[in-house]
Parts: sequence; structure tokens; C-alpha cells
Amino acid sequence: VVMDKPIGVFDSGVGGLTVVREIFRVLPSERVVYFGDTARVPYGTRSAETVRRYAAECAEVLYGHDIKMLVLACNTTSAVALTELREHTSVPVIGVVEPGACAAVAATGTGRIGVIGTTATVESNVYAATIGGLAREMRVFSRACPLFVPLAEEGLTEGPIPEQVAQHYLAPLLANQIDTLVLGCTHYPLLRDVIARVVGSDVRIVDSARATAENIVELLNSRSLRSPNGKEPRHAFLVTDAPRWFADLGQKFLGRGIGDVIRVETGCPVDGPANND
Amino acid sequence: VVMDKPIGVFDSGVGGLTVVREIFRVLPSERVVYFGDTARVPYGTRSAETVRRYAAECAEVLYGHDIKMLVLACNTTSAVALTELREHTSVPVIGVVEPGACAAVAATGTGRIGVIGTTATVESNVYAATIGGLAREMRVFSRACPLFVPLAEEGLTEGPIPEQVAQHYLAPLLANQIDTLVLGCTHYPLLRDVIARVVGSDVRIVDSARATAENIVELLNSRSLRSPNGKEPRHAFLVTDAPRWFADLGQKFLGRGIGDVIRVETGCPVDGPANND
Repeated sequence: VVMDKPIGVFDSGVGGLTVVREIFRVLPSERVVYFGDTARVPYGTRSAETVRRYAAECAEVLYGHDIKMLVLACNTTSAVALTELREHTSVPVIGVVEPGACAAVAATGTGRIGVIGTTATVESNVYAATIGGLAREMRVFSRACPLFVPLAEEGLTEGPIPEQVAQHYLAPLLANQIDTLVLGCTHYPLLRDVIARVVGSDVRIVDSARATAENIVELLNSRSLRSPNGKEPRHAFLVTDAPRWFADLGQKFLGRGIGDVIRVETGCPVDGPANND
Repeated sequence: VVMDKPIGVFDSGVGGLTVVREIFRVLPSERVVYFGDTARVPYGTRSAETVRRYAAECAEVLYGHDIKMLVLACNTTSAVALTELREHTSVPVIGVVEPGACAAVAATGTGRIGVIGTTATVESNVYAATIGGLAREMRVFSRACPLFVPLAEEGLTEGPIPEQVAQHYLAPLLANQIDTLVLGCTHYPLLRDVIARVVGSDVRIVDSARATAENIVELLNSRSLRSPNGKEPRHAFLVTDAPRWFADLGQKFLGRGIGDVIRVETGCPVDGPANND
């Protein structure tokens, strides 16, 4: 039955595990198949065309696992590849941008919203466009924060270095008197404490990972796709490279141990996607 | 004639341009064909097997440009793929590790050498092995500095942020009383001033980009491959993705404008490498 099928979650690397963490929290009975394209991470500096091609290849691997829905747990991919992916499948596809944008519109009082993310996400202007589509009077101020991803991956999430980097990036946004800040990159929840200290308690922080998990609940409910409560589900974690690096680093993002990580091939049509589960 | 052929320079991204900068300085008559695998950068977190596969594919593109020698201007690739690449071509292949290791052995007085680089380079232990092969009594202390690459690419090369990051990484090496420090990543010359301030004037800094250029001069001289002095050579810059990003960012690394950057395809044997020069 469709209800018993897993939720497919795709990201370029480990960042999407912050979305999985929220899925585990609100949907403990759901089985997740995670796919991280670690051989080609990061997507944040790739061209839109390349990201679309990579995402389409990776989605095929997840469709091969007979998923009931696809979550793009990657802001860059959500920004540039969501529409095209939806056109080529009957499985529901959701990204992290729309939920984050909705949550920001709900959270703001003054209509002045800050958005931080990778260079690709910020340059795509996707948050401003999505927020503007929801409520025309909103003002959106964006800033790319390229050092946040390596700080999170390096585990440098407390102390003077991340604090100064956060100051460096966020001061111009604060000068624009935002009252809401969207964490528009799935790595950023690891830096949430530092970011919150720098922006102060008057600025609400919107975590798009959390907003996305709530969206998944709604979508599964509305289509009667919720897995019946029962035994502990068996999740699967697939990557295109460096499974040990992924398992080690991924713990910080998932908030618990990952277990086995399976390496699969993609990218070259002659080989075809390996299906190792 | 062979002398008139270009030097092929390969890197995963823009970092290798610091090596090209040094080549331009000492060999102004040589024509360079640079290939940056920007669709799959960075190599620093990939498995050795994946780096070898990517490097072999990229080398094929450069052989298609009829190069007289191949320079691996990437520490990660030099660390894991040099031997295999040499086995599959009659063209001389040099990396950046051997020249940097030689220069460090020549520079040190106490035999206590520090090496900084990407995680992959440091974990490969290639500098310790190469330095140990040159002079057994040397002690090598290594440290991965993953934030240096994004700092260099972000242009954050002066001020309190890079200074504190450099302190964070280099303090343990200084505690080991090194008298020489090898910049074992082609991005690091952009942070040379900050690094020099942090380590102090008692520690000599070895720039492997510079050492490699001197090695290229020797190799070309010894094989009578030097291009005859003459008109300004026409260089070529090829990338697998994001040519505009490469051209913009690359200026900082090359120290001058880059001009046209050509996008080529690689990675999928069915397509074959495009040859756009």
C-alpha cells in the first residue's frame, strides 16, 4: 500500500539531515530514504542548469526506491529545480522554500523579512519572489553567507569565530530593521544559537527545516498517505561518495547516529543508477 | 614542434590559478591551457577513488589540447592521483606536493615542518611521506584548515575574522615549534599575509605554487621544451561549470584579468569531452 512507502529526501550533501531530524520529530512512524549527492556537493556555486541536471538524476535514484513523496531538503535545488522535477513525476514533490516563505509571512509583524542562504539561493531571488507572491507588501532583504556552511561542517558553531562571522553577515540585514530572519539553508540550524544572539530577541528566526516538516504532515494528512503507527521504521541513507565522512558529520545534523550509509552511483547514464537497498 | 605546445594545468577549481600566476611570472613566453573542474569542485572532501576518476577524465581533456606537460595544480589530486596519471601518459606530469616538500626540506633549520591543507591532503599524509623520503630525520606536523578555502573565495583575507581563524588552526602547530610552514593548498597564498603575521617572522613560509613553477622551469630546461621567446602567448581557460563565477573569482587568484572562459563537458563517457578551443 502507498501509505507504507517511504518518504524520499534529497539534498546535495549532509545539510538536508536537519530536515530529516524535524521529520523524525513530528512523524516518528514514517520511513525515510535519504539521498545525498556527496560526490558533487556543494550545489550552491553551480549553475542552475547543472543543478537541474544533477537533481533530476538523483530523483531517479529515489523513485527507484518507490517513494510516496519527494522532499527537496536543499534550498538551492528547491530554488532552481522544483518546477521541472514536479513536471516529470506523479509523486508529490515539496521543497524547503515555500514552507519557509509561508512561515516568514506568518511570523513578521512589520513586513520586513531577512533571508540568509547560499550564494545560489540568494542570487536566484526565490525567497523574495515566493514571499512577494504570498503578500505583496512584504520587503525582503537577502544576504549570502558562504562561510556558515563550512563553519557548521567544521563544528565551529560556538565562540568568537562564528560570532564575528555572523556579525559580519547580519549587520547589514539588521540595519534594514528586519523583524524576521529566514534560515534559508539547511546547514544553518546548527548555527541557530549564535545567529539568535547576534540578531537579538526582537528578531524572530524561521527555520525552514521545521516549517518543511510541518508541511509534510499536512500533505500526508490531506492525501491520506500517513503511515499507520507501528513498529520503528527502518530508514536508509544513500550517498554518491564518502559514506564515512557523511556518517560522521551527519550525526551533528541529524542529532543522533546514522548507522549504515550506502554508496550508490549516479551521474553517468551508461552506468545507470545503482540500487543497493 | 613540441616546444610550441602549451603547458596543461589542472585543478578542481580556481585555486590552481595561484600556480598559473607563478608560471606567468617565471615563464612569460609559455602558453597555458588551464582546466578547472568547477562542476565537481571541491575535491578536498571526496574519496581518493573518486578523485582519481575525476582527474583521469580531466587529464583526457587536456591531452586533447596537445599539451607538452601536465601540471596538477591541486594538492588533493597530486596527493592521490599523480602516480596513476603518470602511468597512463608519455607526457611529463608534475604535482605541487613534491616541489613544496623539497622547498620545505631546503628551508628548515630545525627539521620541524608544519603543513596545512585540505582535509583530504592532510589525511593522505602525502607531505609527511614525501618529506620523510627526502630526509628521514624531519618531523612533520599537519593540520587541515577547511575554512581557509571559503575565506579566500569570499575575499575575507584581511581583518579579525581570518586572523582568528588562522590563530585557531595554527596555534597547535606553533606549539610544536615548527620553523617552516608549507602552504599545502593552492588557495592559501591569498591568506599568506595573515598566516605570516600569526606564525611570526621566525617561521619560514613555503608556497608550493612558487616551488612548483620553479620545478616547471627545471623540467622544461632539462628536456629542451622551453618555448622560444617571442610574441605574447594566447592562454586558454576551460571549466566544467560556472564560467562567469570562475572568471570573476579567478582574478583574485591569478592577480590579473582572465578574459574568455570556455565551458566544456566531462564526466560522462557517452558525451565524450568537448573540445572547444
